[in-house]
This record gives sequence, C-alpha cells and structure tokens, in this order.
Amino acid sequence: MSAVEAVRIVDARVAQLRELAVEAGLDAVLATSDASIAYLTGFWGMQLERLFAVVVRADGGGAIIGPSLDREGIGTAPTGLEQVFYEPTSNGLPELRQVLTGATRVGVEEHHLNFGRSSALTEAGLALEPAAALVMRLRERKSADEVERLRAACAVVEQVLQRMWEQLRPGDEERTVNARVDYWLRERGATASHPLILFGEHAADPHGTPGSRRLAAGDVICADVSAQIDGYWGDLTRCGTVGEPSDWARRAHAVVREAHAAAVAETRPGVEARAVDAAQRRIVEAAGDVGQSLHGAGHAIGTEVHEPPFLVPTATATLVEGMVFTIEPGIYRSGIGGIRLEDDVLVGAEGPVVLSTLPLELSVVTNGE
Amino acid sequence: MSAVEAVRIVDARVAQLRELAVEAGLDAVLATSDASIAYLTGFWGMQLERLFAVVVRADGGGAIIGPSLDREGIGTAPTGLEQVFYEPTSNGLPELRQVLTGATRVGVEEHHLNFGRSSALTEAGLALEPAAALVMRLRERKSADEVERLRAACAVVEQVLQRMWEQLRPGDEERTVNARVDYWLRERGATASHPLILFGEHAADPHGTPGSRRLAAGDVICADVSAQIDGYWGDLTRCGTVGEPSDWARRAHAVVREAHAAAVAETRPGVEARAVDAAQRRIVEAAGDVGQSLHGAGHAIGTEVHEPPFLVPTATATLVEGMVFTIEPGIYRSGIGGIRLEDDVLVGAEGPVVLSTLPLELSVVTNGE
Repeated sequence: MSAVEAVRIVDARVAQLRELAVEAGLDAVLATSDASIAYLTGFWGMQLERLFAVVVRADGGGAIIGPSLDREGIGTAPTGLEQVFYEPTSNGLPELRQVLTGATRVGVEEHHLNFGRSSALTEAGLALEPAAALVMRLRERKSADEVERLRAACAVVEQVLQRMWEQLRPGDEERTVNARVDYWLRERGATASHPLILFGEHAADPHGTPGSRRLAAGDVICADVSAQIDGYWGDLTRCGTVGEPSDWARRAHAVVREAHAAAVAETRPGVEARAVDAAQRRIVEAAGDVGQSLHGAGHAIGTEVHEPPFLVPTATATLVEGMVFTIEPGIYRSGIGGIRLEDDVLVGAEGPVVLSTLPLELSVVTNGE
Repeated sequence: MSAVEAVRIVDARVAQLRELAVEAGLDAVLATSDASIAYLTGFWGMQLERLFAVVVRADGGGAIIGPSLDREGIGTAPTGLEQVFYEPTSNGLPELRQVLTGATRVGVEEHHLNFGRSSALTEAGLALEPAAALVMRLRERKSADEVERLRAACAVVEQVLQRMWEQLRPGDEERTVNARVDYWLRERGATASHPLILFGEHAADPHGTPGSRRLAAGDVICADVSAQIDGYWGDLTRCGTVGEPSDWARRAHAVVREAHAAAVAETRPGVEARAVDAAQRRIVEAAGDVGQSLHGAGHAIGTEVHEPPFLVPTATATLVEGMVFTIEPGIYRSGIGGIRLEDDVLVGAEGPVVLSTLPLELSVVTNGE
C-alpha cells in the first residue's frame, strides 16, 4: 500500500468517527487505547504511564497527542491529524484540554480511560460519556484489506503451529516450547505475541502459566498461539496428545469439534452474539461427564487480540457483515487437561468464512523414531 | 521459600494496606492492577477485558475477585484472602459490590480502574478516591527478598545481553535479533520481556519498533532489554558500535556515562526524585551539540517494569531506603542514533547499590574474523 493510500484510509476513519460523534450529539470523541489510536492514525504507541490520545472534534478539528519522546514515531505515522506533543514537565492533560477547548460533551473509551484522568477532565468541566461503542462501530466491520491482514496473521500462526507439532517431543520443557514458538512468531514479523502452550493437567486451566513441566507420555497438549503481524492479530488453538489419544482426549476432542462446527455455522449476519455462544455451550455442557465449559465461544479480533463484541451468554450485540471473531470452544477437566479448538472466522455476506486452513485433528506427538 | 512463608508475606502486605486504609479514613481499598494484585496475593492474572480485583476492608474483611475461568490459578495463589468468582454471565461488578457491602469511601488505583467501572461504582453510591499512592507506599519499599529477586532478574538480562554482543554481526536483521534475545530471556524463565534493540538511526527514537533493517558498518546499537523473572523485573541498556566508534558515538557515550554516574550518585534516601533527574539532565543538556535529552532519568521498578515514583522534572516524591530505580540517561540525534546506559539501582541506607555488574563500555561489533 502506498503512503498516500495509507493516509487516505486512516483519515477516512477519522471522518467517519466525526460523523458518528455529530449523530450522537457529542462535541468530540477522545480515543486513548493503543488499538484505537492505531486504527485512527496508523501510529502504534507504547503507552506505559504516559498519555496518548486522539481527539476527533464534531466541528472538524482534532489531533493526536503524545509525549515529545514519541515525536519520531508519531511524526512518521500516516495521519493527516494535527500532532500535539507535551514535554516531560507535563502529564499531557493541559495539552489535551487545549485541543478540547470549547467542547463539553466528550465521548471516551470507558474501558481504557482511567479514573485519574477522567476525574481531572470532569473537574475541568467536561461531561464525559461512554463512547467505546462508537469507535468500535467502525473497528468492528473489517474492510477487505483488514480481512487480508487478519488472514495473513493467521497464516503465520499456522506455520508456527505446524513447526511446533513437527518438533515437539516427550521431555520438552513447557516454558522452552513457548519461548521457541514466540521466537518463530517474532522472526516472522510478529510485533506482539501470546503463545500459551500447556501440557497435561496444566491445560485444564485456560489461563495457566507455562513452567518447567516436561512433556510426558499420555499428556494432552493445548496450544493457543496468537500474534500481531502488520497491526492485526491471528489467534488459533490446536491440541494434541503424546502417543495415541486416551479415551478422555478422544471424547473431549469430539465434543469440542462438534461445538466448534456449531458455533462457526452460527457466525452469520443478523445472529445474536449470545446465540453463537449458546450453539457451542449446549454441546459442551451436555458432556458434563467429560469436563466443564469455562469460557464463552470467543471474541472479536482485529487490531486487538480481544475486542468487543464478545461471544458470551450476556452479549446483546448482533453480528454484522465484516466482523471477525475467534470461535474457540473448550472443555476442561481439573487434574487431566483441556481441549480447545480455535479459528478466526469472518462474518461474510454469504455466511461464515474461516480465515485459517489448519486441520482440526488432534496431533499425535511421538518420540521421533 | 516455603508455601507457608509465601502466604505469610502476602498476607502481611494485606494487613499493612489495611492499616494504611484505616489511617486514611477509607472503608476499603480496591486494587485492580495486575502488579498490585500479584503483590497482595501472589496471583498473576491475565486480565484482558475481565475484572480482577483485591478488596481490603478497613473492618477486617476482603477478597480476591476474578472470573471463574481463573479459578484454578487463583485457587493455588498463596493468599489467605477469601476468593470470590463470577460466572461468564456477570461482569464481576455485582460480586465486587457484594464484597464492598457497607463501605462508602473506597480508595482505588486511579491509573488503572477504568471510567466504565468507576462510573458504575459511583452510581452504586460509592465515593471513590485515588489511592494508588497508598498501595505504592508498600510496593515502593522493597524487602531484602524482593531486592534479591530484582538482582536475579538483572543477572538474567546481563547474561542475555552478553550473549547478544558475542553473537551480533553486521548483516543481522533488527527484528531477528530482538526475537532471539526474547527467546533467550524466555528460555531462562522470563514470563514477560521487552527487548528493544535498535540499530543506527532507529536508535534515535527511544521507543522505536524493530524492523527489517540490517546492522551495517558505522551503526550504533542501543540495546534496552527488560525481563520479568519470578514476578520481578530487570531492565538494563547497553550500547555498542559496528567497528570502532565514530566521534559522535564516543562523545555521546562519554556524556551519557557521566550523566549516569551523576544520577546514580544521587540515588540516596532523602533526595528528591526530581533532583536525580536534574543530576543527569544538566549534563546531557549541556551537550546540546551532541544530541537531545528526550526522557527523564528513570522510574521505579519492581513487579511492574515502570512503577512510580518516576524520576522526572515534575516529580514531587522523595527517595526512601528500599526503593529501586532504573537510572537511564540517554542522548539522541535524529538521523544518527542514540546512546543510553541503564542500570537498576537500590536506594540503600548507605547510598546507591547498583544491582547489575555489566560494564558500561561501548561494545564493538566486528565481522567475527
């Protein structure tokens, strides 16, 4: 993509957000999350404790605001927005308030803006309102270009998963396997990555921490690998066993595979997010003797690895064309392990489009002889 | 450390926080950041969009609250606090409010609690107050055990930096070098890591993103490597050149080395944080013909890689025994590069104690012949 085209794309998003702000009766929208700032300006920051913000004013103005430390990075971002920098003597809020001069009703990303900053802005006379949904109304519908980037990220994760299955051997240390997968992802251009490969009973905790456990005969392996490439994430999970699968692994895999197919089939325009969750949940929960369902069917994915809408029982969103979701049912049994199957699925006009191609079968790890 | 000892340590921290809450006239303190939750309970979570919280009530109660998804991880954490889980049908706030029953004045981590959650709690009748400083009053003074963990993390970063300098060759790709360093860190037990190794003119941006640039004759290399080991971070920066250093690199290094020594010497109990910054700043800013000072002298480090207090011109904190800071002056010249030298320094009773041992000299990269 040319630099001019890149600027055109992000500036068109700013213009759309401005329209949504006007419609909502807001004087401005303030985006502060890394992923929204990147979506609106092409700039990926490293926030730590420093304020980064994009202001889009209903009356036509706006700016990207960041510390002078990031002048170089922001300066080369493909954005037509004014750039405002603050020096280390400032926390950035005076400069932000300056950009917001005359604005009163300001929409904010309520999941990101912190209490300290929101209190300061409120005390300065602004009326803050939750507006994450406004920003997400843009971010959630992926363009054809974005879908291709998501597909490309999935392709990298697939390559790395395949390489992992080829090289995995009994005796391998969990932590080292995760480090190796991380390296392969970074080597292929990942700017962020979350491998979570768990062995045996560790896999019973969907959020376990890889440790010094070594892969042993009879273990299941649950390999959840995500990576951000060129701004967009791929997030896939595949499972395997050391030696032929046990009865439990076979049954768990069959249940999850059926749940996966049912949820993918529901990933269509007009379906409620909670219905996608329900499609997998009824299958997993019917297999209570195999294990437990510990989480929802998945989440949207884009410039963030977890984005709304979430496919959970409480979700009120309705799927629209262009959304992309992880579909990742799982079943878990404490002391034994867990099986999860995860793909990234586009809500296509004609129905679900799975962006990855890796087979769902259990991989069988041998000692390589 | 025994499991019993681990529980004793974190529960003593909860008891201390309770005392601070009582002193401050708060009914409860609500900690929501990963690092504070880990400090108070030994549990390291993976928050994403889900609520995790620790409540410490002035009247003696309290709990750790998390999604049922993390039952396994929270269940094995070395904490004596009550454990409260919420199901996927909840966002966790009803369960949190239950734990806070009868409390009105509640201290929160204002840099972490988001606007959405703080608004919901305020609407439920709670009077929220910033209390990050209360939690940090505990976290900022590292115990002897914590200092040893920080030292151990530094040792791992040092080993990896040494290995990197040994293997670095002209022609190496920036991204691959970062990936390799990341792998070495993870292999040695890092649960999180941020290598930021930049070549040539890329090093002029302290927050640049490693890309496909290859190391070439005449480049400076700025290698900032941080890793979290056993809960605590080490964060060091060393620099080098391909071939003998240019005049610019030599001058820049001499300036930064002098600034580093001056700031380390100020890292003593009773000194103001801004004075530590000033000690390095006056030296770097006097060398305006060499480059610019783009950031402060450093930041506290512990269970987070960046913690308050920050060593910046606006800081009002005073250093006390047991604090640990990065001291990391740098000088940057657009189009040429940057030189930064970073160590982690304990504010000892008798003066500064540098927790790392790696020499500050410029490394010289050759083609290995």
